[in-house]
Amino acid sequence: MIIINTGDGKGKTTAAVGQIIRSLGQGFKVCLIQLFKGDEFYGEQKILTALPNLDFFSYSKEHPFCVKNVSLEEAAQKCKPAIAKIKEIIDGAKNAKKYDLIVLEEFNIALRDNFIDKSEFISLVKELSKNCDVAITGRGAPCELIEIADLVTEMKEIKHPYNLGAKARKGVEF
Amino acid sequence: MIIINTGDGKGKTTAAVGQIIRSLGQGFKVCLIQLFKGDEFYGEQKILTALPNLDFFSYSKEHPFCVKNVSLEEAAQKCKPAIAKIKEIIDGAKNAKKYDLIVLEEFNIALRDNFIDKSEFISLVKELSKNCDVAITGRGAPCELIEIADLVTEMKEIKHPYNLGAKARKGVEF
Repeated sequence: MIIINTGDGKGKTTAAVGQIIRSLGQGFKVCLIQLFKGDEFYGEQKILTALPNLDFFSYSKEHPFCVKNVSLEEAAQKCKPAIAKIKEIIDGAKNAKKYDLIVLEEFNIALRDNFIDKSEFISLVKELSKNCDVAITGRGAPCELIEIADLVTEMKEIKHPYNLGAKARKGVEF
Repeated sequence: MIIINTGDGKGKTTAAVGQIIRSLGQGFKVCLIQLFKGDEFYGEQKILTALPNLDFFSYSKEHPFCVKNVSLEEAAQKCKPAIAKIKEIIDGAKNAKKYDLIVLEEFNIALRDNFIDKSEFISLVKELSKNCDVAITGRGAPCELIEIADLVTEMKEIKHPYNLGAKARKGVEF
């Protein structure tokens, strides 16, 4: 099954984290591949990396829109090992299935910014989904990805304190 | 801060679970009060109950719409200890703050079905939020609750395999 969490509202990443916890609780094996998230910033990383049956990979940790002195080219280059990791998982699954769920965090952003090739990514997701569930997060999921997905949720902002000038808070946004 | 995850789409509970994991990862203390969820059915329960710094309470485990032989009266009665627990937490916080985040799972459903009193619940949530963040989940959050909330997300269904006749799957829906 291909699952997408998209939209401008809060809950895309936390819902994927909850999905990981749900899967692990059912005894499944999970792989999380994360983009654009600095280590030891997001609270969930500390808990997730300590759980058994979860493999965690993080690439292109700094997005140029969030961190100065990181160029678009650099960020794109650093997404390449993430794609290589997906290919490695697909190859590995030909011998023995390793994961029940693979979460591709913020890959919609990498697609939006052309850091990864859309048609290649869509082929890889289709391939991955033959052996396990694949969940993809990030705002602005492209139509071609929604097209091949089974379960798509838009996290829609109804009210957000950012709009009243509030800042991101520890434990809530990170 | 008062946070609401509502809407007909997937991700309300998993986003709350992710929020709990995020909070715990930041070293915060969390309380989860759950309604209408049978023990050892949902994968997340097994992982969450094993984590330190999380207190987990579950009431009115069977909803009449899901489990035969449970009456509306019975389900409503079994929600009373949940309200008593909230009052106990509010009273306790007058001496010393115990939690940074309290998650009230599926309380929107209890409001919809008149199992709990709406104006009493809203007063309690306001009171709770003086000392900690409060997250409330469930479809159909009433306007009066949205009114007092700071952060409201509608999980909107764009595509769902249920609509193609698929059944709920282990690790995905539970």
